[in-house]
Amino acid sequence: MDLLKQRIIDDGIIVSTEIVKVDSFLNQQLDVKLFEEIGKEIHNRFKNDEITKILTLESSGIAIATIASRYFDYVPVVFAKKAKPNTMNEQFYSSETKSFTKGNIYNAIVSKKYLSKTDKILIIDDFMAHGEAACSLANLALQAESTVVGIVAVIEKYYQGGSTKLRNLGYRVETLASIEKIKDGRIFFR
Amino acid sequence: MDLLKQRIIDDGIIVSTEIVKVDSFLNQQLDVKLFEEIGKEIHNRFKNDEITKILTLESSGIAIATIASRYFDYVPVVFAKKAKPNTMNEQFYSSETKSFTKGNIYNAIVSKKYLSKTDKILIIDDFMAHGEAACSLANLALQAESTVVGIVAVIEKYYQGGSTKLRNLGYRVETLASIEKIKDGRIFFR
Repeated sequence: MDLLKQRIIDDGIIVSTEIVKVDSFLNQQLDVKLFEEIGKEIHNRFKNDEITKILTLESSGIAIATIASRYFDYVPVVFAKKAKPNTMNEQFYSSETKSFTKGNIYNAIVSKKYLSKTDKILIIDDFMAHGEAACSLANLALQAESTVVGIVAVIEKYYQGGSTKLRNLGYRVETLASIEKIKDGRIFFR
Repeated sequence: MDLLKQRIIDDGIIVSTEIVKVDSFLNQQLDVKLFEEIGKEIHNRFKNDEITKILTLESSGIAIATIASRYFDYVPVVFAKKAKPNTMNEQFYSSETKSFTKGNIYNAIVSKKYLSKTDKILIIDDFMAHGEAACSLANLALQAESTVVGIVAVIEKYYQGGSTKLRNLGYRVETLASIEKIKDGRIFFR
């Protein structure tokens, strides 16, 4: 997706060969107009797959998943939580997840009410590194015996192996902007 | 906003006189079509206020803020974080916040890059109890010397005093569904 790649080049901040920050439009400040184009592109890739639900992880996946829902005729968005709220007294699915950015381990949690056997799930991950978050979301869907139709990595750092790992597990992974490498202060896409 | 009130009556789960859960459409599963109506209503109330930015708090404020942005000609959404990511190495504003739902205290954090003196900020709080989150967001905006044009409480439990406290501090607060009390397993609106 050229618009997104250009935006990453223009506004991404390269911290190291492992980290590029996209806070100014994706992870803290949100460019919703860009998200409309991302939503359209996601729909374009999965429009024939009878998606019934979009699954993502709090927090930064929520905005893109929300806009994407518009293009899938407003299918529900469900987001997994990184901590169990006091008010969650019902049964839930849980999957241990390692955060690349924060360096900690947490349980991704979703109420059993919101995933079912008949669901055809599209997983949206805003920024894929080692694929831990997406893998964990797929795990939650599998616990519910839902079908995982596919996984979207809006941006991925390809060289960190997330999408390859998920494809090897049999998942369809669609990436909108796949970073090949970060070198000499420049970002190279695949 | 009658559509929202009816939805709370239909799908809200009363846990106690203090807590009604709206996870099925607002806090874990998201009804984006409903959010479009909420976005329109928010715009209707603030359309003449030259809003330049929408400020909310992760996680559950993000989806509504994102849809609301569409109706304000795609002004940027900024969300405060409840923990500092490893990758945040720039300066940030911080405000101590007490969570009603989770019973803990955290620092709401936003990078200094995303709020400025010239910003006219609309704060969106998805579910107001004692008003701690909105107060904290207003505090972040004030640290940046931004103008807080108003605060939206999508749902509020009026009897917990959040909106009254904020109005006493001089803020304009607009509530879309204001719960007067929860009694005998029923929800009463103001």
